[in-house]
Amino acid sequence: MKIDVLTLFPEMFHGVFGHSILKKAEERNFATYHVHNFREFSKNKHQKVDDYPYGGGAGMVLTPQPIFDAVHHLTKDMEKRPRIILMCPQGEKYTQKKAEELAGEEHLIFICGHYEGYDERIREFLVTDELSIGDYVLTGGELASMVIIDSVVRLLPGVLGNEESAPCDSYSSGLLEHPHYTRPTDFNGMKVPDTLLSGDHKKIEEWRRKESVRRTFLRRPDLLENRELTEEEKKWLKEFKN
Amino acid sequence: MKIDVLTLFPEMFHGVFGHSILKKAEERNFATYHVHNFREFSKNKHQKVDDYPYGGGAGMVLTPQPIFDAVHHLTKDMEKRPRIILMCPQGEKYTQKKAEELAGEEHLIFICGHYEGYDERIREFLVTDELSIGDYVLTGGELASMVIIDSVVRLLPGVLGNEESAPCDSYSSGLLEHPHYTRPTDFNGMKVPDTLLSGDHKKIEEWRRKESVRRTFLRRPDLLENRELTEEEKKWLKEFKN
Repeated sequence: MKIDVLTLFPEMFHGVFGHSILKKAEERNFATYHVHNFREFSKNKHQKVDDYPYGGGAGMVLTPQPIFDAVHHLTKDMEKRPRIILMCPQGEKYTQKKAEELAGEEHLIFICGHYEGYDERIREFLVTDELSIGDYVLTGGELASMVIIDSVVRLLPGVLGNEESAPCDSYSSGLLEHPHYTRPTDFNGMKVPDTLLSGDHKKIEEWRRKESVRRTFLRRPDLLENRELTEEEKKWLKEFKN
Repeated sequence: MKIDVLTLFPEMFHGVFGHSILKKAEERNFATYHVHNFREFSKNKHQKVDDYPYGGGAGMVLTPQPIFDAVHHLTKDMEKRPRIILMCPQGEKYTQKKAEELAGEEHLIFICGHYEGYDERIREFLVTDELSIGDYVLTGGELASMVIIDSVVRLLPGVLGNEESAPCDSYSSGLLEHPHYTRPTDFNGMKVPDTLLSGDHKKIEEWRRKESVRRTFLRRPDLLENRELTEEEKKWLKEFKN
């Protein structure tokens, strides 16, 4: 997968692209990252990339020219149009489902604004997706694009080894993960539940299923609403509610 | 505000803490960032920080000792207990409201796991908050903590200048932002709406309110559900629905 990022702050990406899974994925040729400062595409003599909004108002707006030209430069020799993703609080809410969809693409281009708004023509005539990673305000699209890139690249076949397939992956079973414990059995008086030390695998499995339902009930009851509950799960839920 | 981060990948943070608003906030003494590798607190002779889960199963689990000791080291001379925030997909969903709450604190400690699960005693006896930035799976808590730190620090009084208070801030009015346009009025045939060029401020204001409602209706109808609509907004919504 080829990943291009357009940003005014390319240095923000070095630490994240240069470590951990993203680095490994690049070393093993599963992904390449190319960070471009779209200021370099500005035709303005002072290399300006923003201007005042028509109609007045606070804040600056990113002009269309540098971003259109940067995307054109990246795509001009391509047969297939890549996904061109605008990072914006007003975008579609990003989810694991979208991560899986994007993991099937060959080429992603991310456009990251910073403080400024985007000229509407960028949204209307250039991008294929507008994404938001959550209902909170960030200084720019850079961190949001890093979040998406991390969540997509880890899904590429071969990228994750066994040791990295986290027990914390919570969205596959439709329930939150049960609690985990490791050594020591007694840490300053805080103990591991007896069941987990019993060696009785049937009991351990049952404990885990039950704790998984309990945690989901307590923290994310919305996940239980559309679930077909087993008889066992119904019994436990009744118990938790009392 | 003092911000401590516990991680196994401290280098991931340099690019983000060293640029843009987070850097400015530190230069102006609004915030300080301290990134600690909690492996340094491991008492294991090989500096191991994880171990197999009791009860069996795939994946590794972070042991309590290094994380408890690191937090103890950071808090031992403090009168007031800081917020100790665990980054985890199972945590409370992070929102702008939480960002505002955290912006009122003096000291935040972030605990970032990576691949591994956390020993449950860390959740139960050490942390004050467990947060998730969205319903997608990340390789580790590092990017999630950067997202939270960015969204919190930009709220600290004095950090944002006028030029940085984005027109893209979508959560204050309860509606999404209207479209923005800047120069040129005609970009390769793509034009700025006439109203915005009319100089008629009353008309411009009305256009913006209407487009704001339209965009919210199209993209985030959930935001309209709990809103007390004005007569004007009701009229527009009727129009959009047809």
